[in-house]
Amino acid sequence: MSHNTFGKLFRFTSWGESHGPAIGVVIDGCPPGYLLTEDIIQPFLNARKPGTSRHVTQRREDDKVKILSGVFENRTTGAPISLLIENTDARSRDYSDIAEQYRPGHADYVYDAKYGFRDYRGGGRASARETAVRVAAGAVARQILGDEIRIAGALVQIGEYPVERSDWRWEEAANNALCCPSAATLPKWEALLDETRKAGSSLGAIVEIVASGVPAGWGAPVYGKLDADLASAMMSIPAAKGVEIGAGFGAVRLSGEQNADEMRKGENGPVFLSNNNGGVLGGISSGQDIVVRTAFKPTSSILTPGQSINRKGEEVEVQTKGRHDPCVGVRAAPIAEAMLACVLVDHKLRHRGQCG
Amino acid sequence: MSHNTFGKLFRFTSWGESHGPAIGVVIDGCPPGYLLTEDIIQPFLNARKPGTSRHVTQRREDDKVKILSGVFENRTTGAPISLLIENTDARSRDYSDIAEQYRPGHADYVYDAKYGFRDYRGGGRASARETAVRVAAGAVARQILGDEIRIAGALVQIGEYPVERSDWRWEEAANNALCCPSAATLPKWEALLDETRKAGSSLGAIVEIVASGVPAGWGAPVYGKLDADLASAMMSIPAAKGVEIGAGFGAVRLSGEQNADEMRKGENGPVFLSNNNGGVLGGISSGQDIVVRTAFKPTSSILTPGQSINRKGEEVEVQTKGRHDPCVGVRAAPIAEAMLACVLVDHKLRHRGQCG
Amino acid sequence: MSHNTFGKLFRFTSWGESHGPAIGVVIDGCPPGYLLTEDIIQPFLNARKPGTSRHVTQRREDDKVKILSGVFENRTTGAPISLLIENTDARSRDYSDIAEQYRPGHADYVYDAKYGFRDYRGGGRASARETAVRVAAGAVARQILGDEIRIAGALVQIGEYPVERSDWRWEEAANNALCCPSAATLPKWEALLDETRKAGSSLGAIVEIVASGVPAGWGAPVYGKLDADLASAMMSIPAAKGVEIGAGFGAVRLSGEQNADEMRKGENGPVFLSNNNGGVLGGISSGQDIVVRTAFKPTSSILTPGQSINRKGEEVEVQTKGRHDPCVGVRAAPIAEAMLACVLVDHKLRHRGQCG
Amino acid sequence: MSHNTFGKLFRFTSWGESHGPAIGVVIDGCPPGYLLTEDIIQPFLNARKPGTSRHVTQRREDDKVKILSGVFENRTTGAPISLLIENTDARSRDYSDIAEQYRPGHADYVYDAKYGFRDYRGGGRASARETAVRVAAGAVARQILGDEIRIAGALVQIGEYPVERSDWRWEEAANNALCCPSAATLPKWEALLDETRKAGSSLGAIVEIVASGVPAGWGAPVYGKLDADLASAMMSIPAAKGVEIGAGFGAVRLSGEQNADEMRKGENGPVFLSNNNGGVLGGISSGQDIVVRTAFKPTSSILTPGQSINRKGEEVEVQTKGRHDPCVGVRAAPIAEAMLACVLVDHKLRHRGQCG
Repeated sequence: MSHNTFGKLFRFTSWGESHGPAIGVVIDGCPPGYLLTEDIIQPFLNARKPGTSRHVTQRREDDKVKILSGVFENRTTGAPISLLIENTDARSRDYSDIAEQYRPGHADYVYDAKYGFRDYRGGGRASARETAVRVAAGAVARQILGDEIRIAGALVQIGEYPVERSDWRWEEAANNALCCPSAATLPKWEALLDETRKAGSSLGAIVEIVASGVPAGWGAPVYGKLDADLASAMMSIPAAKGVEIGAGFGAVRLSGEQNADEMRKGENGPVFLSNNNGGVLGGISSGQDIVVRTAFKPTSSILTPGQSINRKGEEVEVQTKGRHDPCVGVRAAPIAEAMLACVLVDHKLRHRGQCG
Repeated sequence: MSHNTFGKLFRFTSWGESHGPAIGVVIDGCPPGYLLTEDIIQPFLNARKPGTSRHVTQRREDDKVKILSGVFENRTTGAPISLLIENTDARSRDYSDIAEQYRPGHADYVYDAKYGFRDYRGGGRASARETAVRVAAGAVARQILGDEIRIAGALVQIGEYPVERSDWRWEEAANNALCCPSAATLPKWEALLDETRKAGSSLGAIVEIVASGVPAGWGAPVYGKLDADLASAMMSIPAAKGVEIGAGFGAVRLSGEQNADEMRKGENGPVFLSNNNGGVLGGISSGQDIVVRTAFKPTSSILTPGQSINRKGEEVEVQTKGRHDPCVGVRAAPIAEAMLACVLVDHKLRHRGQCG
Repeated sequence: MSHNTFGKLFRFTSWGESHGPAIGVVIDGCPPGYLLTEDIIQPFLNARKPGTSRHVTQRREDDKVKILSGVFENRTTGAPISLLIENTDARSRDYSDIAEQYRPGHADYVYDAKYGFRDYRGGGRASARETAVRVAAGAVARQILGDEIRIAGALVQIGEYPVERSDWRWEEAANNALCCPSAATLPKWEALLDETRKAGSSLGAIVEIVASGVPAGWGAPVYGKLDADLASAMMSIPAAKGVEIGAGFGAVRLSGEQNADEMRKGENGPVFLSNNNGGVLGGISSGQDIVVRTAFKPTSSILTPGQSINRKGEEVEVQTKGRHDPCVGVRAAPIAEAMLACVLVDHKLRHRGQCG
Repeated sequence: MSHNTFGKLFRFTSWGESHGPAIGVVIDGCPPGYLLTEDIIQPFLNARKPGTSRHVTQRREDDKVKILSGVFENRTTGAPISLLIENTDARSRDYSDIAEQYRPGHADYVYDAKYGFRDYRGGGRASARETAVRVAAGAVARQILGDEIRIAGALVQIGEYPVERSDWRWEEAANNALCCPSAATLPKWEALLDETRKAGSSLGAIVEIVASGVPAGWGAPVYGKLDADLASAMMSIPAAKGVEIGAGFGAVRLSGEQNADEMRKGENGPVFLSNNNGGVLGGISSGQDIVVRTAFKPTSSILTPGQSINRKGEEVEVQTKGRHDPCVGVRAAPIAEAMLACVLVDHKLRHRGQCG
């Protein structure tokens, strides 16, 4: 058991605080013989990187990943892969207020309640900075999964505004700072975020991740379900408050007939006539696209002052200063993609272990 | 790692198929010295039991639990607690069709894809019958949690019809077969289910579980988050397709100000002015009520014939015969309560282990 | 984490007390499609069974195993395999003394120190009766390993008397009640045990288990070493006090040259000129025979009165009455074989999971 | 599951190769609020450090530990503690021969058999260099255990020469390069090692570790036994071939009466009249000293040429050049002490988790 480890056979352990010297991850159980270099991982980190548009926090980190172990002559050896990312833009001076006050919606209070004290600098261990190492682990996972499994993510809603699904193009999502898959929706979201940022407020968002090419048979029954692990993976991302697979909460409104995902004979195995189950039946992949959506709450750090208490239990007014994202969901797609990749490779190995 | 084990310190391993001689669960890591008898567990099993109203499957099981180990003179000893429930009403003759055909929305196809064959009798391991042992484990978990932590569940939506929240009374939920907390909503849902059953169709539902009295500090950061474990726990229940905590997907539509859960000084520690975070901040309990909702898809077993294929890959028409629930969500509340109880006691022990 | 679970991918969870209604085991992660019936498991239980010769405890148990799940039409399904063995000859009346007194060398005192009380009947959870389920799990493991891997065990020392190794014949070990591989040694050990039993005393023993046919490459570096798992497996057997691999403690007296296990080219891969490493190098199998020896202390239950204290802390004299083994090691070979089989199949699956 | 992780609640994950840029360890589950600085860890690393006497390998490493996370204002925060040690004296040029040849007694061949290739530089992941991070983790474990638990180790045998036990003084063991607790034995061992080194040969050794002050009640029955975890911990150390607890293999030669560890009433709880069980009964600590001995084989790297094969399967003669230890056991005591400390703190937390 480990609070900071994810996965069973492809298993990564994350460490590091927002304002420590570095963050990092150790990946254990990676199969041997796969090509891996820093250049392969770096683009995924760049895609998650803060400071790249006006819509996200202005903290500027190079996020240069270093491979410290587990790779020899550019190939994975089967030994643990240690990845390290230095913290270069950690402005500790900004956070003196946080030391004594509990920011509403943040983990400040509960860390003190649990541990007796906390590393308050930039949120310490609770900072979204930790998600960089998930992205790094996900990049390794993608190498093992290979090109036949394609994982892509997009924002499908910001605040009250869903994406125009009839205009969905994956290439578009990869080309704008909001991971918006619709060129028609993009300007509306941009205006919304500009307005929100100027108002010192924040918005929630929903991210949808799709994995194609996953063969039928990954996952396991009962407590090792692929979707149970996906739910855990997504809910572990900071600010996540909901996860759904396939039709998800929308399935509640369907009749059994509408929801059925009927099957027909295809050229290469069965073909499904719909995908309300999101590629998972009984916890096991069906060969259809795996579709998972995660809801992120609005950023808790807002410029509007809020009521709270301090460490002594006294009532105070808290106002966030400095850098923040008006919508944390905007940066969540690369993280959710990475978590999906890690869950998939873990279940690929688990399936191979049990079933050969 | 174990596909059929849930939890870390309070850890239960489930076994059994729908039509085998019995199902059961082994609970390891239970603290010693707690009162435990079959009479304490049985009422929870009775609450989940099928065959008790016209709204649920007519399979009739006594669901009599036997304690085989881990208890001495009515107290837990710290040794593994083995609980066994015999299958008495397993009608294997009903399921000959399933052996060769894949029922849409069921796990038939994926089990064959994964394992090469399957125990098709009554759904085998994928049957909802397995959930009886979760309820039994949950009953043990409640003994460890004690009376100060109260866990209650209710249905909050069937199909398109949400409960009338202004009329919510927990006592009401405990008194009707639909776990409906509103006397005003109940007749509408009953009529809806009657209609659905007669039409041979099915409906989805949303279940809400609330735990009160959980102290601040349970849970852990990053991958050991209380809400990540809750998401996994709920998504592992058969037919679950979505999980949300607190405001959940609704939080997406809130502004940062609306969602903030501001804090004030109370008589016994902090008081929160709202609970959009559902009692969990940064993966750790805040002392507020823990609120989790799970979406269940409409029962896949419907009387309307559906298109599918058989084991040979040939196209067939599949029609479910025999007993089924028109809305599996109706029986889900005791199961979801049990899973929440198990997650809580696990984190109680994990917190105590690390923090004393 | 689980105190009562062994293994990672082939993983079994044991439950039950000496004088409860039954004992049992749940095996999770078993590969699907393997032949398994009660008749396949039973002979291994019979080999371990007490009451079969004058040299072992006269408790008489049928040890009839029942398969409750995970098998369909005589083949493993991939679902958890629940095995149950009823306790039929549990004479609770014999053990009233134990309730209040701490038998020297037994776990009575430490169970009370840890849990506050204990199930004292027949040693409760600490009884060697638990080892029956290890043997059952081992029988399943052997089915997965197949005929190419042969596992055999023998006693190599009782008290001060080592076996005559020049007279070693495996068939002999299978044919006598002492697992003695030498017809020349057997009568000496029998006389020794008769004398010991009559004196109300007891003796220690060393058991040696050999696995042939294990391919090179199973195991893993650092903390997942095959020999580290073997050491844990063997030391977990009641009364075990030492474990060694290959030359073991004897390797200390060898020079580097003597201990080297040089390699030559063979017809089917490398040939080793000796096997001081006992088939494991760097934690990974080398293709040689795996050789592990376990030392068992003399049975703690002896008829000679001993000094001790009771639950109140008062000084008492303790004398074991009733049934006991003069040398627990005599019955240990089938248990140690089973543990080796389980470790091997676990590492077979682990290797396949990571390396394909 | 993780091949490179040790422990359950106090859980560390090791990474790094002999000739990579660094090695390190991530400790998860450490209790919060304990004093921890690099200065506290460093002395333990210095005690293990190679290059400090003529009896050990002349590789010179500073072994300067850096704390990268999990500590704030010199106190553990409960977040994962990442420790990093740079490799500064990695002479890759010495190891070109190893790339193509399999050194007898080393893991070269089995790594190739398992992974298809290997990082051959200095033994890669199989190098004893990894043990530095165990020592670092052990230093953290000692902080949690506190001063009341004292852990000390000594060599008790080199080759055929046991220590003079009547002359045992712990202070002596701490003051010489051989961890020899007897001033009378020391010169004999030194002469023996000098002779062995000059001959280009090597010797095995036995290390004994004792932990005092461990309360009764740590550990757990069946597969979570304290001694089973100790056996695994010790056997995972490079070159270990045997482990024993208390009287260990010697218990085989004792009668039940001699081995009994009778109990009497003491001023502070029970007093034992002997400690043949080495402080562990039924897998649970008894309050006596915990005594564990580990046998290390003679160093496999010897200057005498040996027969082997190369990667192509051709027969070759292998001769180790460069730096090596004539007796790896000489450096093993600090490592074994560290592993014992880690097992103890893990079980301290496990006990607290289950039993409060």
